Amino acid sequence: MQQLVLVRHGESVWNKENLFTGWTDVDLSERGREESRSAGRLLKERGFLFDVAFTSVLRRAIDTLWTVLKEMDLMWIEERKDWRLNERHYGALQGLNKAQTAEKYGEEQVKLWRRSYHVRPPALNEADQRYPGSDPRYASLARHLIPKTECLQDTVERVLPCWQQQIAPALLECRRPLVVAHGNSLRALIKYLDRVSDAEIVNLEIPTGTPLVYELDDDLKPVRHYYATESGTPA
Amino acid sequence: MQQLVLVRHGESVWNKENLFTGWTDVDLSERGREESRSAGRLLKERGFLFDVAFTSVLRRAIDTLWTVLKEMDLMWIEERKDWRLNERHYGALQGLNKAQTAEKYGEEQVKLWRRSYHVRPPALNEADQRYPGSDPRYASLARHLIPKTECLQDTVERVLPCWQQQIAPALLECRRPLVVAHGNSLRALIKYLDRVSDAEIVNLEIPTGTPLVYELDDDLKPVRHYYATESGTPA
Repeated sequence: MQQLVLVRHGESVWNKENLFTGWTDVDLSERGREESRSAGRLLKERGFLFDVAFTSVLRRAIDTLWTVLKEMDLMWIEERKDWRLNERHYGALQGLNKAQTAEKYGEEQVKLWRRSYHVRPPALNEADQRYPGSDPRYASLARHLIPKTECLQDTVERVLPCWQQQIAPALLECRRPLVVAHGNSLRALIKYLDRVSDAEIVNLEIPTGTPLVYELDDDLKPVRHYYATESGTPA
Repeated sequence: MQQLVLVRHGESVWNKENLFTGWTDVDLSERGREESRSAGRLLKERGFLFDVAFTSVLRRAIDTLWTVLKEMDLMWIEERKDWRLNERHYGALQGLNKAQTAEKYGEEQVKLWRRSYHVRPPALNEADQRYPGSDPRYASLARHLIPKTECLQDTVERVLPCWQQQIAPALLECRRPLVVAHGNSLRALIKYLDRVSDAEIVNLEIPTGTPLVYELDDDLKPVRHYYATESGTPA
Protein backbone atom coordinates (compact mmCIF):
# COMPACT_ATOMS: atom_id res chain seq x y z
CA MET A 1 0.00 0.00 0.00
CA GLN A 2 1.42 3.36 -1.06
CA GLN A 3 0.42 6.64 0.49
CA LEU A 4 0.20 9.94 -1.36
CA VAL A 5 -0.50 13.17 0.54
CA LEU A 6 -1.76 16.25 -1.30
CA VAL A 7 -1.88 19.72 0.25
CA ARG A 8 -3.36 22.83 -1.35
CA HIS A 9 -1.33 25.91 -0.41
CA GLY A 10 -2.71 28.27 2.23
CA GLU A 11 -4.64 31.44 1.45
CA SER A 12 -2.70 33.96 -0.64
CA VAL A 13 -2.90 37.72 -0.48
CA TRP A 14 -4.79 37.73 -3.79
CA ASN A 15 -7.31 35.07 -2.70
CA LYS A 16 -8.06 37.51 0.08
CA GLU A 17 -8.41 40.48 -2.29
CA ASN A 18 -10.62 38.48 -4.70
CA LEU A 19 -8.26 38.81 -7.69
CA PHE A 20 -7.68 36.21 -10.40
CA THR A 21 -4.21 34.86 -9.64
CA GLY A 22 -3.17 31.99 -11.93
CA TRP A 23 0.60 32.12 -12.45
CA THR A 24 1.00 35.49 -10.71
CA ASP A 25 3.61 34.86 -8.03
CA VAL A 26 1.90 36.24 -4.93
CA ASP A 27 2.71 35.66 -1.25
CA LEU A 28 0.73 33.74 1.31
CA SER A 29 -1.45 35.88 3.56
CA GLU A 30 -0.87 35.72 7.32
CA ARG A 31 -3.84 33.36 7.49
CA GLY A 32 -2.25 31.26 4.73
CA ARG A 33 0.95 30.99 6.74
CA GLU A 34 -1.02 29.90 9.78
CA GLU A 35 -2.87 27.30 7.66
CA SER A 36 0.52 25.97 6.52
CA ARG A 37 1.84 25.71 10.06
CA SER A 38 -1.34 23.89 11.14
CA ALA A 39 -1.02 21.44 8.25
CA GLY A 40 2.57 20.69 9.26
CA ARG A 41 1.75 20.25 12.94
CA LEU A 42 -1.18 17.99 12.08
CA LEU A 43 0.88 15.79 9.75
CA LYS A 44 3.55 15.47 12.42
CA GLU A 45 1.06 14.64 15.19
CA ARG A 46 -0.60 12.04 12.97
CA GLY A 47 2.75 10.37 12.34
CA PHE A 48 3.06 11.02 8.61
CA LEU A 49 6.55 10.73 7.12
CA PHE A 50 7.79 11.90 3.74
CA ASP A 51 11.06 11.47 1.93
CA VAL A 52 10.43 13.51 -1.21
CA ALA A 53 8.32 16.60 -1.84
CA PHE A 54 6.87 17.93 -5.08
CA THR A 55 5.69 21.47 -5.53
CA SER A 56 5.23 24.15 -8.17
CA VAL A 57 7.57 27.05 -8.95
CA LEU A 58 5.17 29.55 -7.36
CA ARG A 59 6.10 30.93 -3.98
CA ARG A 60 2.72 30.44 -2.29
CA ALA A 61 3.12 26.69 -2.78
CA ILE A 62 6.85 26.60 -1.97
CA ASP A 63 6.30 28.68 1.17
CA THR A 64 3.54 26.29 2.25
CA LEU A 65 5.84 23.32 1.63
CA TRP A 66 8.76 24.87 3.53
CA THR A 67 6.51 25.72 6.46
CA VAL A 68 5.13 22.16 6.57
CA LEU A 69 8.65 20.69 6.40
CA LYS A 70 9.85 23.00 9.19
CA GLU A 71 6.97 21.97 11.44
CA MET A 72 7.64 18.29 10.70
CA ASP A 73 11.45 18.44 11.20
CA LEU A 74 11.79 17.24 7.61
CA MET A 75 13.61 20.19 6.07
CA TRP A 76 16.29 17.82 4.79
CA ILE A 77 14.12 15.78 2.39
CA GLU A 78 14.48 16.08 -1.36
CA GLU A 79 12.38 18.79 -2.99
CA ARG A 80 11.43 18.88 -6.66
CA LYS A 81 9.88 22.05 -7.99
CA ASP A 82 8.03 21.54 -11.25
CA TRP A 83 6.25 24.23 -13.31
CA ARG A 84 3.73 21.57 -14.32
CA LEU A 85 2.28 21.68 -10.80
CA ASN A 86 1.57 25.43 -11.15
CA GLU A 87 -1.95 26.78 -10.80
CA ARG A 88 -4.08 26.95 -13.95
CA HIS A 89 -2.94 29.90 -16.08
CA TYR A 90 -5.75 32.43 -16.05
CA GLY A 91 -4.73 34.31 -19.20
CA ALA A 92 -5.69 37.98 -19.48
CA LEU A 93 -7.86 37.71 -16.37
CA GLN A 94 -4.78 37.49 -14.12
CA GLY A 95 -4.69 40.46 -11.78
CA LEU A 96 -8.32 41.46 -12.41
CA ASN A 97 -10.88 41.68 -9.64
CA LYS A 98 -13.38 38.85 -9.82
CA ALA A 99 -16.41 41.03 -9.03
CA GLN A 100 -15.42 43.75 -11.53
CA THR A 101 -14.80 41.13 -14.20
CA ALA A 102 -18.29 39.76 -13.61
CA GLU A 103 -19.74 43.28 -13.99
CA LYS A 104 -17.86 43.82 -17.23
CA TYR A 105 -18.34 40.47 -18.95
CA GLY A 106 -21.45 39.21 -17.16
CA GLU A 107 -21.83 36.55 -14.48
CA GLU A 108 -22.47 33.81 -17.02
CA GLN A 109 -19.30 34.43 -19.00
CA VAL A 110 -17.16 34.52 -15.86
CA LYS A 111 -18.82 31.36 -14.61
CA LEU A 112 -17.91 29.69 -17.93
CA TRP A 113 -14.27 30.77 -17.59
CA ARG A 114 -14.15 29.64 -14.00
CA ARG A 115 -16.23 26.51 -14.09
CA SER A 116 -16.09 25.06 -17.58
CA TYR A 117 -13.64 22.27 -18.32
CA HIS A 118 -13.04 23.31 -21.93
CA VAL A 119 -13.42 27.11 -22.13
CA ARG A 120 -10.28 29.25 -21.86
CA PRO A 121 -10.20 32.81 -20.54
CA PRO A 122 -8.91 35.43 -23.03
CA ALA A 123 -5.25 34.79 -23.86
CA LEU A 124 -2.31 37.02 -23.02
CA ASN A 125 -0.25 38.23 -25.94
CA GLU A 126 3.48 37.77 -25.78
CA ALA A 127 4.17 41.47 -25.28
CA ASP A 128 2.11 41.48 -22.08
CA GLN A 129 4.33 41.71 -19.03
CA ARG A 130 2.23 38.94 -17.48
CA TYR A 131 3.32 36.53 -20.25
CA PRO A 132 5.56 33.91 -18.59
CA GLY A 133 8.00 33.67 -21.52
CA SER A 134 10.30 36.35 -20.13
CA ASP A 135 10.39 34.94 -16.59
CA PRO A 136 13.73 33.18 -15.92
CA ARG A 137 12.00 30.30 -14.15
CA TYR A 138 10.44 29.25 -17.47
CA ALA A 139 13.52 29.97 -19.58
CA SER A 140 14.30 26.32 -20.19
CA LEU A 141 10.78 25.53 -21.45
CA ALA A 142 10.04 25.02 -25.11
CA ARG A 143 8.02 28.00 -26.32
CA HIS A 144 4.94 25.96 -27.22
CA LEU A 145 4.69 24.74 -23.62
CA ILE A 146 4.44 28.24 -22.13
CA PRO A 147 0.74 29.01 -21.69
CA LYS A 148 -0.97 32.26 -22.65
CA THR A 149 -4.16 30.99 -21.04
CA GLU A 150 -5.53 27.64 -19.94
CA CYS A 151 -8.81 25.85 -19.44
CA LEU A 152 -8.82 23.12 -16.80
CA GLN A 153 -8.33 20.52 -19.54
CA ASP A 154 -5.05 22.21 -20.51
CA THR A 155 -3.94 22.10 -16.90
CA VAL A 156 -4.79 18.40 -16.65
CA GLU A 157 -2.79 17.72 -19.79
CA ARG A 158 0.38 19.29 -18.40
CA VAL A 159 -0.01 17.95 -14.86
CA LEU A 160 -0.31 14.33 -16.01
CA PRO A 161 3.23 14.11 -17.44
CA CYS A 162 4.50 15.27 -14.04
CA TRP A 163 2.54 12.46 -12.42
CA GLN A 164 3.80 9.91 -14.96
CA GLN A 165 7.44 11.01 -14.96
CA GLN A 166 7.97 12.17 -11.38
CA ILE A 167 5.37 11.32 -8.76
CA ALA A 168 4.28 7.83 -9.88
CA PRO A 169 7.89 6.60 -10.27
CA ALA A 170 8.67 7.85 -6.75
CA LEU A 171 5.69 5.88 -5.40
CA LEU A 172 6.73 2.79 -7.34
CA GLU A 173 10.17 3.06 -5.68
CA CYS A 174 8.31 2.98 -2.34
CA ARG A 175 9.16 6.58 -1.59
CA ARG A 176 6.71 8.63 0.45
CA PRO A 177 5.81 11.77 -1.48
CA LEU A 178 4.19 14.97 -0.31
CA VAL A 179 2.65 17.13 -3.05
CA VAL A 180 2.00 20.79 -2.23
CA ALA A 181 0.26 22.48 -5.12
CA HIS A 182 -2.74 24.54 -6.22
CA GLY A 183 -6.51 24.15 -6.51
CA ASN A 184 -6.47 23.28 -10.21
CA SER A 185 -3.25 21.27 -10.42
CA LEU A 186 -4.59 19.14 -7.54
CA ARG A 187 -7.96 18.83 -9.31
CA ALA A 188 -5.99 17.51 -12.29
CA LEU A 189 -4.31 14.82 -10.17
CA ILE A 190 -7.57 13.86 -8.47
CA LYS A 191 -9.44 13.72 -11.79
CA TYR A 192 -6.89 11.21 -13.01
CA LEU A 193 -6.67 9.16 -9.81
CA ASP A 194 -10.42 8.95 -9.16
CA ARG A 195 -11.57 8.98 -12.79
CA VAL A 196 -13.74 12.03 -12.19
CA SER A 197 -15.75 13.21 -15.22
CA ASP A 198 -15.03 16.52 -17.00
CA ALA A 199 -18.38 17.84 -15.78
CA GLU A 200 -17.83 16.94 -12.15
CA ILE A 201 -14.19 17.86 -11.62
CA VAL A 202 -14.89 21.59 -12.03
CA ASN A 203 -17.13 21.47 -8.97
CA LEU A 204 -14.65 19.69 -6.72
CA GLU A 205 -13.54 22.09 -4.00
CA ILE A 206 -10.29 21.29 -2.20
CA PRO A 207 -9.86 23.14 1.09
CA THR A 208 -6.59 25.06 1.59
CA GLY A 209 -3.99 23.70 4.00
CA THR A 210 -5.87 20.44 4.68
CA PRO A 211 -3.88 17.28 3.90
CA LEU A 212 -5.73 14.96 1.53
CA VAL A 213 -4.46 11.40 1.93
CA TYR A 214 -4.71 8.82 -0.86
CA GLU A 215 -4.01 5.17 -0.18
CA LEU A 216 -3.02 3.45 -3.41
CA ASP A 217 -2.60 -0.20 -4.32
CA ASP A 218 0.52 -1.57 -5.99
CA ASP A 219 -0.77 -0.40 -9.38
CA LEU A 220 -1.28 3.06 -7.88
CA LYS A 221 -5.09 2.73 -8.04
CA PRO A 222 -6.80 4.56 -5.15
CA VAL A 223 -8.17 2.28 -2.45
CA ARG A 224 -9.52 5.12 -0.34
CA HIS A 225 -8.89 8.75 0.44
CA TYR A 226 -9.59 11.04 3.36
CA TYR A 227 -8.76 14.47 4.71
CA ALA A 228 -6.41 14.33 7.70
CA THR A 229 -8.07 16.47 10.34
CA GLU A 230 -7.67 17.17 14.05
CA SER A 231 -10.35 14.68 14.96
CA GLY A 232 -8.46 11.98 13.11
CA THR A 233 -11.39 10.07 11.65
CA PRO A 234 -10.85 9.18 7.99
CA ALA A 235 -13.83 10.44 5.97
CA MET B 1 34.15 33.48 -16.20
CA GLN B 2 32.10 31.43 -13.74
CA GLN B 3 30.93 32.71 -10.41
CA LEU B 4 30.56 30.65 -7.26
CA VAL B 5 29.03 32.15 -4.13
CA LEU B 6 29.58 30.54 -0.73
CA VAL B 7 27.62 31.46 2.39
CA ARG B 8 28.26 30.16 5.90
CA HIS B 9 24.98 29.71 7.78
CA GLY B 10 23.99 32.29 10.39
CA GLU B 11 24.61 31.89 14.11
CA SER B 12 22.92 28.84 15.62
CA VAL B 13 21.50 28.49 19.11
CA TRP B 14 24.45 26.27 20.05
CA ASN B 15 27.09 28.68 18.69
CA LYS B 16 25.51 31.11 21.10
CA GLU B 17 25.61 28.66 24.02
CA ASN B 18 29.23 27.69 23.28
CA LEU B 19 28.47 23.99 22.67
CA PHE B 20 30.24 21.70 20.20
CA THR B 21 27.64 21.20 17.45
CA GLY B 22 28.96 19.15 14.52
CA TRP B 23 26.08 17.15 13.04
CA THR B 24 23.64 18.03 15.84
CA ASP B 25 20.63 19.49 14.04
CA VAL B 26 20.12 22.77 15.89
CA ASP B 27 18.12 25.84 14.87
CA LEU B 28 19.39 29.25 13.88
CA SER B 29 19.33 31.83 16.66
CA GLU B 30 17.31 35.01 16.11
CA ARG B 31 20.59 36.72 15.26
CA GLY B 32 21.33 33.89 12.78
CA ARG B 33 18.00 34.48 11.08
CA GLU B 34 18.73 38.17 10.81
CA GLU B 35 22.18 37.41 9.36
CA SER B 36 20.47 35.21 6.75
CA ARG B 37 17.99 37.92 5.80
CA SER B 38 20.83 40.44 5.48
CA ALA B 39 22.80 38.08 3.24
CA GLY B 40 19.75 37.64 0.99
CA ARG B 41 19.03 41.36 0.80
CA LEU B 42 22.68 42.12 0.05
CA LEU B 43 22.91 39.51 -2.72
CA LYS B 44 19.73 40.89 -4.26
CA GLU B 45 20.88 44.52 -4.06
CA ARG B 46 24.24 43.60 -5.59
CA GLY B 47 22.45 41.91 -8.52
CA PHE B 48 23.55 38.33 -7.91
CA LEU B 49 21.50 35.61 -9.62
CA PHE B 50 21.46 31.89 -8.95
CA ASP B 51 19.76 28.99 -10.66
CA VAL B 52 20.80 26.11 -8.44
CA ALA B 53 21.52 25.93 -4.71
CA PHE B 54 23.56 23.40 -2.76
CA THR B 55 23.27 22.92 0.96
CA SER B 56 23.70 20.33 3.70
CA VAL B 57 20.98 18.24 5.33
CA LEU B 58 21.23 20.27 8.55
CA ARG B 59 18.47 22.74 9.28
CA ARG B 60 20.68 25.70 10.20
CA ALA B 61 22.08 25.66 6.65
CA ILE B 62 18.75 24.90 4.95
CA ASP B 63 17.00 27.64 6.94
CA THR B 64 19.73 30.09 5.91
CA LEU B 65 19.34 29.04 2.27
CA TRP B 66 15.54 29.35 2.34
CA THR B 67 15.76 32.77 3.96
CA VAL B 68 18.26 33.96 1.34
CA LEU B 69 16.07 32.62 -1.50
CA LYS B 70 12.97 34.30 -0.05
CA GLU B 71 14.75 37.65 0.18
CA MET B 72 16.02 37.27 -3.40
CA ASP B 73 12.66 36.16 -4.92
CA LEU B 74 14.41 32.97 -6.00
CA MET B 75 12.42 30.39 -4.06
CA TRP B 76 11.75 28.51 -7.31
CA ILE B 77 15.37 27.53 -8.11
CA GLU B 78 16.56 23.96 -7.84
CA GLU B 79 17.87 22.92 -4.42
CA ARG B 80 20.18 19.97 -3.79
CA LYS B 81 20.72 18.93 -0.20
CA ASP B 82 23.83 16.82 0.26
CA TRP B 83 25.06 15.28 3.53
CA ARG B 84 28.61 15.78 2.25
CA LEU B 85 28.21 19.53 2.83
CA ASN B 86 27.43 18.93 6.53
CA GLU B 87 29.58 20.47 9.25
CA ARG B 88 32.58 18.45 10.45
CA HIS B 89 31.39 15.63 12.70
CA TYR B 90 32.62 16.41 16.20
CA GLY B 91 32.39 12.87 17.59
CA ALA B 92 31.79 12.45 21.31
CA LEU B 93 32.33 16.17 21.87
CA GLN B 94 28.98 16.99 20.25
CA GLY B 95 26.69 18.60 22.81
CA LEU B 96 29.49 19.34 25.29
CA ASN B 97 30.28 22.85 26.48
CA LYS B 98 33.52 24.12 25.00
CA ALA B 99 34.74 25.72 28.23
CA GLN B 100 33.92 22.66 30.37
CA THR B 101 35.62 20.41 27.84
CA ALA B 102 38.74 22.55 28.09
CA GLU B 103 38.67 22.27 31.90
CA LYS B 104 38.31 18.49 31.70
CA TYR B 105 40.79 17.64 28.94
CA GLY B 106 43.03 20.71 29.08
CA GLU B 107 43.27 23.65 26.75
CA GLU B 108 46.00 22.07 24.66
CA GLN B 109 44.03 18.92 23.91
CA VAL B 110 40.91 20.86 22.96
CA LYS B 111 42.99 23.13 20.76
CA LEU B 112 44.36 20.04 19.01
CA TRP B 113 40.84 18.72 18.40
CA ARG B 114 39.65 22.09 17.17
CA ARG B 115 42.65 23.31 15.25
CA SER B 116 44.59 20.34 14.03
CA TYR B 117 44.08 19.09 10.49
CA HIS B 118 44.72 15.44 11.32
CA VAL B 119 43.58 14.83 14.92
CA ARG B 120 40.08 13.48 15.48
CA PRO B 121 38.00 14.10 18.62
CA PRO B 122 36.98 10.94 20.54
CA ALA B 123 34.63 8.80 18.42
CA LEU B 124 30.99 8.04 19.14
CA ASN B 125 30.10 4.40 19.48
CA GLU B 126 27.19 3.10 17.45
CA ALA B 127 24.94 2.70 20.47
CA ASP B 128 25.22 6.42 21.24
CA GLN B 129 22.02 8.24 20.37
CA ARG B 130 24.16 10.91 18.70
CA TYR B 131 25.45 8.34 16.17
CA PRO B 132 23.98 9.34 12.78
CA GLY B 133 23.35 5.73 11.65
CA SER B 134 19.81 5.66 13.02
CA ASP B 135 18.78 9.03 11.56
CA PRO B 136 16.52 8.53 8.50
CA ARG B 137 18.31 11.27 6.59
CA TYR B 138 21.43 9.07 6.44
CA ALA B 139 19.55 5.80 5.86
CA SER B 140 20.67 5.50 2.25
CA LEU B 141 24.38 5.90 3.11
CA ALA B 142 26.74 2.97 3.11
CA ARG B 143 27.72 2.23 6.72
CA HIS B 144 31.41 2.99 6.23
CA LEU B 145 30.54 6.52 5.10
CA ILE B 146 28.71 7.44 8.28
CA PRO B 147 31.18 9.22 10.55
CA LYS B 148 31.66 8.55 14.24
CA THR B 149 34.07 11.50 14.41
CA GLU B 150 36.04 13.54 11.91
CA CYS B 151 39.19 15.59 11.70
CA LEU B 152 39.19 18.39 9.13
CA GLN B 153 41.01 16.11 6.69
CA ASP B 154 38.10 13.64 6.86
CA THR B 155 35.68 16.48 6.12
CA VAL B 156 37.77 17.60 3.15
CA GLU B 157 37.78 14.06 1.81
CA ARG B 158 33.98 13.79 1.79
CA VAL B 159 33.31 17.36 0.61
CA LEU B 160 35.51 16.98 -2.47
CA PRO B 161 33.35 14.30 -4.14
CA CYS B 162 30.39 16.67 -3.77
CA TRP B 163 32.42 19.35 -5.54
CA GLN B 164 33.52 16.94 -8.27
CA GLN B 165 30.14 15.29 -8.83
CA GLN B 166 27.70 18.13 -8.16
CA ILE B 167 29.02 21.67 -7.94
CA ALA B 168 31.79 21.64 -10.57
CA PRO B 169 29.53 20.01 -13.21
CA ALA B 170 26.88 22.68 -12.55
CA LEU B 171 29.51 25.39 -13.10
CA LEU B 172 30.75 23.69 -16.26
CA GLU B 173 27.15 23.76 -17.57
CA CYS B 174 27.25 27.54 -16.98
CA ARG B 175 24.79 27.33 -14.12
CA ARG B 176 25.06 29.84 -11.30
CA PRO B 177 25.35 27.99 -8.01
CA LEU B 178 24.87 29.23 -4.48
CA VAL B 179 26.42 27.05 -1.76
CA VAL B 180 25.12 27.49 1.79
CA ALA B 181 27.08 25.34 4.19
CA HIS B 182 29.16 25.24 7.38
CA GLY B 183 32.47 26.57 8.65
CA ASN B 184 34.38 23.36 8.00
CA SER B 185 32.68 22.17 4.80
CA LEU B 186 33.39 25.63 3.35
CA ARG B 187 37.00 25.43 4.59
CA ALA B 188 37.21 22.17 2.67
CA LEU B 189 36.05 23.80 -0.57
CA ILE B 190 38.32 26.78 -0.10
CA LYS B 191 41.32 24.57 0.71
CA TYR B 192 40.79 22.82 -2.61
CA LEU B 193 40.07 25.94 -4.68
CA ASP B 194 42.92 28.06 -3.28
CA ARG B 195 45.38 25.23 -2.62
CA VAL B 196 45.66 26.18 1.06
CA SER B 197 48.10 24.10 3.10
CA ASP B 198 46.95 21.71 5.85
CA ALA B 199 48.61 23.96 8.43
CA GLU B 200 46.97 27.16 7.22
CA ILE B 201 43.44 26.01 6.49
CA VAL B 202 42.66 25.38 10.16
CA ASN B 203 43.21 29.06 10.89
CA LEU B 204 40.94 30.36 8.13
CA GLU B 205 37.90 32.00 9.70
CA ILE B 206 34.84 32.42 7.50
CA PRO B 207 32.33 34.94 8.87
CA THR B 208 28.69 33.78 9.16
CA GLY B 209 26.11 35.11 6.72
CA THR B 210 28.66 36.97 4.58
CA PRO B 211 28.65 35.94 0.90
CA LEU B 212 32.10 34.89 -0.31
CA VAL B 213 32.33 35.28 -4.07
CA TYR B 214 34.77 33.26 -6.19
CA GLU B 215 35.38 34.14 -9.80
CA LEU B 216 36.67 31.09 -11.67
CA ASP B 217 38.18 30.65 -15.10
CA ASP B 218 36.94 28.08 -17.60
CA ASP B 219 38.96 25.37 -15.85
CA LEU B 220 37.36 26.40 -12.56
CA LYS B 221 40.61 27.85 -11.23
CA PRO B 222 40.04 30.87 -8.97
CA VAL B 223 40.90 34.21 -10.55
CA ARG B 224 39.94 36.24 -7.51
CA HIS B 225 37.64 36.13 -4.53
CA TYR B 226 36.02 38.70 -2.27
CA TYR B 227 33.39 39.06 0.42
CA ALA B 228 30.28 40.81 -0.82
CA THR B 229 29.60 43.54 1.72
CA GLU B 230 27.43 46.63 2.01
CA SER B 231 30.24 48.89 0.91
CA GLY B 232 30.58 46.87 -2.25
CA THR B 233 34.33 47.01 -2.64
CA PRO B 234 35.81 43.63 -3.57
CA ALA B 235 38.56 42.74 -1.10
